[in-house]
Amino acid sequence: METIASLGENESLKRTISRLNKGEYEVVGPGDDAAVIKAESGSFVVTTDTLVQDHDFKHEWSSGYDLGWKAVATNIADVAAMGATPTVLVVALVAPSNTAVAWLEAFADGLREACLALAPGCAVVGGDLASGAQMVIAVTAHGDLQGRAAVLRSGAQVGDQVAVAGTLGRAACGLELLASGNTDAANAYDDWVNVQTRPQPPIAAGAAAAEAGATSMLDISDGLAKDATRIAKASDVTIKLHPIQLQGFQAVLEGAAQALAIKPGKLTADEYALKWVLGGGEDHSLLATFPADTKLPRAFKRIGEVVAKQEHEVLLGDSPVPELGWDSVTG
Amino acid sequence: METIASLGENESLKRTISRLNKGEYEVVGPGDDAAVIKAESGSFVVTTDTLVQDHDFKHEWSSGYDLGWKAVATNIADVAAMGATPTVLVVALVAPSNTAVAWLEAFADGLREACLALAPGCAVVGGDLASGAQMVIAVTAHGDLQGRAAVLRSGAQVGDQVAVAGTLGRAACGLELLASGNTDAANAYDDWVNVQTRPQPPIAAGAAAAEAGATSMLDISDGLAKDATRIAKASDVTIKLHPIQLQGFQAVLEGAAQALAIKPGKLTADEYALKWVLGGGEDHSLLATFPADTKLPRAFKRIGEVVAKQEHEVLLGDSPVPELGWDSVTG
Repeated sequence: METIASLGENESLKRTISRLNKGEYEVVGPGDDAAVIKAESGSFVVTTDTLVQDHDFKHEWSSGYDLGWKAVATNIADVAAMGATPTVLVVALVAPSNTAVAWLEAFADGLREACLALAPGCAVVGGDLASGAQMVIAVTAHGDLQGRAAVLRSGAQVGDQVAVAGTLGRAACGLELLASGNTDAANAYDDWVNVQTRPQPPIAAGAAAAEAGATSMLDISDGLAKDATRIAKASDVTIKLHPIQLQGFQAVLEGAAQALAIKPGKLTADEYALKWVLGGGEDHSLLATFPADTKLPRAFKRIGEVVAKQEHEVLLGDSPVPELGWDSVTG
Repeated sequence: METIASLGENESLKRTISRLNKGEYEVVGPGDDAAVIKAESGSFVVTTDTLVQDHDFKHEWSSGYDLGWKAVATNIADVAAMGATPTVLVVALVAPSNTAVAWLEAFADGLREACLALAPGCAVVGGDLASGAQMVIAVTAHGDLQGRAAVLRSGAQVGDQVAVAGTLGRAACGLELLASGNTDAANAYDDWVNVQTRPQPPIAAGAAAAEAGATSMLDISDGLAKDATRIAKASDVTIKLHPIQLQGFQAVLEGAAQALAIKPGKLTADEYALKWVLGGGEDHSLLATFPADTKLPRAFKRIGEVVAKQEHEVLLGDSPVPELGWDSVTG
């Protein structure tokens, strides 16, 4: 089997680069000390994130293609959440030296296809390949605000509508299906498994929200409750979620909750689905607030409203919502 | 002992961010989904690289401060090698969860001090912290060409002068001093050890070279011979190094070679020093070519000339130079 050790760094990189798409923003592409990128509006948006083996992914559950896709999707969601259009990414991969070149090629295919599908014009323009014991995928994504102001977390105003673009809880449900070892259930609900392995954040909705006058926005990476808390804290308000407006997100997950054969005495399927909707990250949907009289952009659904600051940052109806979710260090 | 696990990701990141300098290019800084950066000239330069524990560094030899410094220095050298001025960096750190917060704070201090010392105005504007078994530091650096054209590897012309800004072989000598376990020698030549642990690439020389009309440039990360080969291949020429013009670089390393008590029958101290000068990377000096009649910018020293393509890409006087150096996958 051809591995990155047997092929060497330079040749392995060449094989990878040859599979990437060429984006619209590249002036100088891969192959020199650095790439040169257009930023005609006079600024750029930048964010970085890592995927760590056995913390953020498992090879049993995710192929090289899946991980390439996910690396792009999760990072350009952060760009979109500023109200920007993704332009270019750089990807640094640390991989065991016995990693198959075929894996690397599939990874490159995933990078390319996610760019083409989620943010046409966007492309990977550079990277780095190094060997290490544990696989780490470190991605830096860039975007262009095209003259718009960035949409921060801190701008939510009392009276605003709270809205979400994209799905809620599906990636968490997919993860639980994978972890259950219940192959029948995982096959029956493979759409939710696919959201976990190849998330489809609504990238264009970020710029649309900024254009429509969104007052705050972020991408839901750690769960609706935790990420809504971030907006509430930064904006000094309370976010009130309306249970009835979450029911659509919840209902589609009840079958999978049922299939996972929740033990009697534990949560009902209905409660389980709500836990995924409130606590599950990784769908990388966009959570935003808009003035009360704004017509929401097409991708957004209303899920609540911004109220004056109270004891709790986030309410579900009139009850406090506990901070659920994921801390990337403490788990 | 306070660790990043006991403190959690958010609090650990806050502690780190509070120690960073604020640069000149930040519109929106750390704390949101992404940062927003000025790029008033209408483009930006971007490069990414990783430092992997036990491959690129060892904790016995490098403190948190050293690694913060090195992460900045090595990456902005790539930016400088395009002819650009470094503007901002993002830093993703994967660290074992028992890493001391004090280590993280020292790392942040190193990031800050390297920016202030090597590229005033430049700063770290964002990052990510995750836990993993092996420490990985993934840095993405950005720069601005300020209207200049990027200096690529491929522009060297027959008749050009070959010149270097910065030191040669010192980092490799320092590494060998550390690896020798010979504490007396390492202490006597700690200046060379310091080049290994806290490199000082001549960042401003990159923009100066571009302004002076450099025809090609790169940063020497894998050794003069290997990196000169890259320019030669990309430009379809041969690079002829003049032994007499390398003697200054070589002479300062002979004492350390002697102190390392080279065994009889092996290389002489003189030959050892030349091996470091030709094969040692990690000083991150700038290798550039300039038209024959160009007055070299002050930081550059002439070390050879560009000649018509021959059998070998790089010559030392009239003899071929073997490709020495470091492949980050195969070692």
